[in-house]
Amino acid sequence: MISLPKELQANSTPQIKIDPKKPSIVTNTIDSEPRPTPAKSIEEERNRTNWDTVKMHQFLEGSPEKSLEILKLYKSLERDTILQSSFEHYDNTKDQDRELVAQRINQMTKFIEIDSPKKFRRRLNLMTVYDPSMGIRIAVNLGLFLNCIRGNGTAAQYEFWAKHRESAIIKQMYGCFGMTELGHGSNVAGCETTATFDEETDEFVIDTPNISATKWWIGGAAHSATHSSVYARLIVKGKDYGVKCFIVPLRDSQHNLCPGVAIGDIGSKMGRQGVDNGWIQFSDVRIPRFFMLQKWCKVDRHGNVTLPPLEQLSYISLLGGRVDMAVDSYRQGARFMTIVLRYAAGRKQFKQEGAKVETTVLDYANVQKRLLPYLALVYAMAVGTDRLEKQHEQILEQMDRAILNNDKNGINQSLNSTKSLFVDSGSLKSTCTWLTSSLIDESRQACGGHGYSSYNGFGKTYNDWAVQCTWEGDNNVLGMSAGKTIVKNVQQILKGKTIKSSTLDFLNNAKQLLDTKNILATEADLKDSSKFRVALQAVIVKYAASLSDVLAKNKNNWDLVGASRVELSKLRAHYYLLETFEERVKSLSPASDLYPHLANLLQLYYVSVILIPFAADFIRFGVISSDLVYYATSEYFGTLCGAVRPYVVGLTDSFQQPDNFLNSAIGKYDGNIYENYFGVVKSAHPPRNDKAPYNSALTGMLNRPSQEERERFEKSAEAAKILSR
Amino acid sequence: MISLPKELQANSTPQIKIDPKKPSIVTNTIDSEPRPTPAKSIEEERNRTNWDTVKMHQFLEGSPEKSLEILKLYKSLERDTILQSSFEHYDNTKDQDRELVAQRINQMTKFIEIDSPKKFRRRLNLMTVYDPSMGIRIAVNLGLFLNCIRGNGTAAQYEFWAKHRESAIIKQMYGCFGMTELGHGSNVAGCETTATFDEETDEFVIDTPNISATKWWIGGAAHSATHSSVYARLIVKGKDYGVKCFIVPLRDSQHNLCPGVAIGDIGSKMGRQGVDNGWIQFSDVRIPRFFMLQKWCKVDRHGNVTLPPLEQLSYISLLGGRVDMAVDSYRQGARFMTIVLRYAAGRKQFKQEGAKVETTVLDYANVQKRLLPYLALVYAMAVGTDRLEKQHEQILEQMDRAILNNDKNGINQSLNSTKSLFVDSGSLKSTCTWLTSSLIDESRQACGGHGYSSYNGFGKTYNDWAVQCTWEGDNNVLGMSAGKTIVKNVQQILKGKTIKSSTLDFLNNAKQLLDTKNILATEADLKDSSKFRVALQAVIVKYAASLSDVLAKNKNNWDLVGASRVELSKLRAHYYLLETFEERVKSLSPASDLYPHLANLLQLYYVSVILIPFAADFIRFGVISSDLVYYATSEYFGTLCGAVRPYVVGLTDSFQQPDNFLNSAIGKYDGNIYENYFGVVKSAHPPRNDKAPYNSALTGMLNRPSQEERERFEKSAEAAKILSR
Repeated sequence: MISLPKELQANSTPQIKIDPKKPSIVTNTIDSEPRPTPAKSIEEERNRTNWDTVKMHQFLEGSPEKSLEILKLYKSLERDTILQSSFEHYDNTKDQDRELVAQRINQMTKFIEIDSPKKFRRRLNLMTVYDPSMGIRIAVNLGLFLNCIRGNGTAAQYEFWAKHRESAIIKQMYGCFGMTELGHGSNVAGCETTATFDEETDEFVIDTPNISATKWWIGGAAHSATHSSVYARLIVKGKDYGVKCFIVPLRDSQHNLCPGVAIGDIGSKMGRQGVDNGWIQFSDVRIPRFFMLQKWCKVDRHGNVTLPPLEQLSYISLLGGRVDMAVDSYRQGARFMTIVLRYAAGRKQFKQEGAKVETTVLDYANVQKRLLPYLALVYAMAVGTDRLEKQHEQILEQMDRAILNNDKNGINQSLNSTKSLFVDSGSLKSTCTWLTSSLIDESRQACGGHGYSSYNGFGKTYNDWAVQCTWEGDNNVLGMSAGKTIVKNVQQILKGKTIKSSTLDFLNNAKQLLDTKNILATEADLKDSSKFRVALQAVIVKYAASLSDVLAKNKNNWDLVGASRVELSKLRAHYYLLETFEERVKSLSPASDLYPHLANLLQLYYVSVILIPFAADFIRFGVISSDLVYYATSEYFGTLCGAVRPYVVGLTDSFQQPDNFLNSAIGKYDGNIYENYFGVVKSAHPPRNDKAPYNSALTGMLNRPSQEERERFEKSAEAAKILSR
Repeated sequence: MISLPKELQANSTPQIKIDPKKPSIVTNTIDSEPRPTPAKSIEEERNRTNWDTVKMHQFLEGSPEKSLEILKLYKSLERDTILQSSFEHYDNTKDQDRELVAQRINQMTKFIEIDSPKKFRRRLNLMTVYDPSMGIRIAVNLGLFLNCIRGNGTAAQYEFWAKHRESAIIKQMYGCFGMTELGHGSNVAGCETTATFDEETDEFVIDTPNISATKWWIGGAAHSATHSSVYARLIVKGKDYGVKCFIVPLRDSQHNLCPGVAIGDIGSKMGRQGVDNGWIQFSDVRIPRFFMLQKWCKVDRHGNVTLPPLEQLSYISLLGGRVDMAVDSYRQGARFMTIVLRYAAGRKQFKQEGAKVETTVLDYANVQKRLLPYLALVYAMAVGTDRLEKQHEQILEQMDRAILNNDKNGINQSLNSTKSLFVDSGSLKSTCTWLTSSLIDESRQACGGHGYSSYNGFGKTYNDWAVQCTWEGDNNVLGMSAGKTIVKNVQQILKGKTIKSSTLDFLNNAKQLLDTKNILATEADLKDSSKFRVALQAVIVKYAASLSDVLAKNKNNWDLVGASRVELSKLRAHYYLLETFEERVKSLSPASDLYPHLANLLQLYYVSVILIPFAADFIRFGVISSDLVYYATSEYFGTLCGAVRPYVVGLTDSFQQPDNFLNSAIGKYDGNIYENYFGVVKSAHPPRNDKAPYNSALTGMLNRPSQEERERFEKSAEAAKILSR
């Protein structure tokens, strides 16, 4: 034992004295360190807004009508006591989340009966931003289940299940989507579940032959669904016709499981805890023949199978989900840009030499470079995904009209448009969901420790979001598929063909584009968005052509260029966004108040989100020099950030997302960061001198007897004497 | 209402019939689609292992002794019924997690009394991989609190609190670390809490002047801690001496809050739910003068303040945490590489044309390119962080010896070494924690939907991990700081100075390196790790010199090059890892069984983790041509993946992490992916025909009366007649 300093020996028990009569003597110090005033800072930033933020919202949403509808829906949602968000929910357990979601679905079914379909879809999409579990639980029924019937069933079948049986308003029945199996995810054709025709009884026998054929991850299966659309191999007279769709009841009208149907809860997940995902095993479950969806493939009473003429049309039903996920990326991105940029504008950290107050976080060049590219991206995603949404709606209308009129030419045109939409929605879904995932993560990191608190929204949203990169087409699989189509298109065009009614029209210039060099030769070129757009066209065509060369040398081994196909798909997604953004900005009068801000964001978008990350490709294909890339990276990027920086509060206010929608303590409109945040924490966990429920484990540990005592002094010198005798 | 097809009209109620006597007629189909046999596939992969995995483990850990200690600790942990992991815990609520952690800490305190300090630290570090909440709750006391006393207190003060008061074995008292404030994170110097000397009573008055000075995020404060080391501004006779450290009791021996101390629970977080983070406000809390930590700064009875001669030494205490986080990166990375690569070796997806079985996921080129660079990185981090750990230990010993002997020369030498360690630990902590975050995310995505299940470990670990990028030095702040030091060093060297006892010795060749060109000129150069190492030296020096030029042109505005400083820090971290990895591989005999595998991993590491991501820099500085980078990206990268691919199961077995440690249903050693996973899910949620607790909300919704009925038929034609009269 070392000797202790005098004071310690004299007075080894800590003494705490409080003298209420003694005045605090720290007053001067408080005054010398002024308390932070983030609300004031944010108000000052906001005052720089020199445009009408509602006009900007109209630009972002594509029209004044859509903007107004969204603003009204925001108001409706934040007032609805069941649908509105709450900080309390960030403390929910899985079971509480599931119940909350069920109550919200219940409430939403009241709106589904009175909203127009378009308005309801918008309401659902907006709510999905802050309650994605609710969103997907409804989307599984309305989107996947019903779209599956719509895409694969006859009109009468759709009418029966959707209208007569009211699943379109989530009444009587609740559908789930039985595609994925434990051993088979993206590869639907690999499904092992069987649907065997029994001619004797005119039934199909649905069976799960082994564990890997167990239907897995089925949203709504664990507790909610009454029916499932089941993807199963059609077996007739011993012949396997591949995977088709069947409607299989899971629970009866008493909500009890049907015989032969085994269902279990998949349990805890990284996110979306509010969804009751389940697994399903079928043991020789019999359904009437007419429960098969037979728009394309038909089985008659005698087991004669008619194969579909245009089966590819049946996949259109999957596209809606991908379009929605691209749109989600915009709204979720807008939400976190609003939160993080308000915080970064209100937060101060580190004093510069000689300064009286600390520096605003957003004034650091590195912080601007980390965040502002995402702000520009969100603007690009707003207009780009608005276009994608419209494109999707038009194709569905065009297709329905053509089928109704039995217009073969029209059907063929729709098929061409659908092929484009496959590439567009696949590349945009994957690229936008990945970028939004990074956006949320980077924003969280930019909020420091406060980004880690549940009450600021980052953690839950990131976890809920993560699966967007995986489901309804794994991002890598979608990217490879989109990339492959682009390469094939370029190959055909170089052979002299022309592609039609495609959003990839520019590929028809492949030959000219291949010959281009140094499209971006000067700093002025870099600032010209049209030139940049052509440069991006050239990179895409040259990239595709180079992959074509690799394929030619490698026996058309597409796998070999898998990673490059994903890259190409990303470039293509950016082309779609850039083209739309540029076109819409140019449609404004340069005298408009919005114009200069949008022009800056457009440039910032393509310089920081396209050129810099893909610089090696731009250089390799001779589209730009290494020196000009260096200028862009080291100088122009910073200049553009500086141009956008002063207006960030107005630029995020323009997203018009209300506080209840943001549901983030540090992201509120009033900017009163610390008071709001502390208030939420105290309200969630009122500070009392409470001990933890497990306090005895702690105090037992701190007050434990000595090791010797716990060992019953069996190792003592005394014991040694006795035991050594 | 549209007319229904005949069958539907005739028989609109679904009929489910089960006839147990009827044999299943799907037998042939089952046989034609052989069930997946992942265990067999993984066993076949494992059989390719042509080296001793324990020898490889010794290579990774740095010595046979350390390897043996770790293997024994793994065994001890997986057998300990309190410390062992369990799939059940993935379903824990926050409160259950906190209690579990308290019980584990309780159990760990038994080991702390009998393990050597080194062994206990190792035990703690290993357990931290699967229970980071437990890890940090102990580390806050043993690491932050006690290191703060050790670094800032006199030897006697340390002896008193650590030994006499037994906080070093977490007995009697439990310390927390009161540094961060609500309004002040990374910038400790900006703390607002005050410690005002009251000469009359010989006490300090600790006070929280306003809300932003509230101590925030304090781990262990909410329920556990009895004392806190508090960072507060020392105010004596009205003068502010800046931030110093004080020991402030929070709870008395009855575990009740001390008067004037207000504490609340911070509540839910993105991860580490098992940690009871709290906020603390002090209202004129009085502590005896001798509770100030006074190794450097002293205040005497009359308020005379002695300022510290070597205050920078007080920061050494923060370095241990950073070193540990770099080591954590290796172990966590090894864990998820083991899980994902076993899964990818056992999982099959999509049939190639003409193939009978689906392709193993790991055989896809894109999957290899996504995952194998991380495997190579983990090998590099293993040896690199082993070196960092040793470097840290040596400096602490050297410093202690020098101070004990009052050896001024020795102290100065230690100071120099410490400066190096600042850069090394800062750049490695930030670079490795970021990369590990990406590694976990990419691995999760590569497992498709199954990566999203809690029982496979990704979600919880990602969430627990995320904060490693933020705390104990935000990654961007650390990166900027390390980058700045490198630039300053290069500036001094170019002025003729030489830097000493530094891991950055190679910078002394700055002049020669600046003159180099095309160090990597041929494909053969690329395959020579020594040439690559020199190329990386050249990039670092040229990068630093180019930033120096920018600074000269911009009035030394370091902020302007903030993003580049972070880049430079990453390059420097990779240099440290590459140098170590190369040296250790070269220390092996080329005839060793391990050698060819390690040589491949070394090349894969620098080609895919250094060259390709930083290609634009390598090209810009003329170290390599754009064409050679293209060769590396499009060809050689794939070749290296192909060389490593056949041995991945053995290469991850070599990490020697047992199943209980991995705690991942799809990652178990036996490779029986689907059975294991399904078993865990069923055990966590036994499948019964249970209805959800909130079932009535669902059935109420499905069986709700019609809208007209719910509206009491008030809008009926009949009502209209009456009400329109």
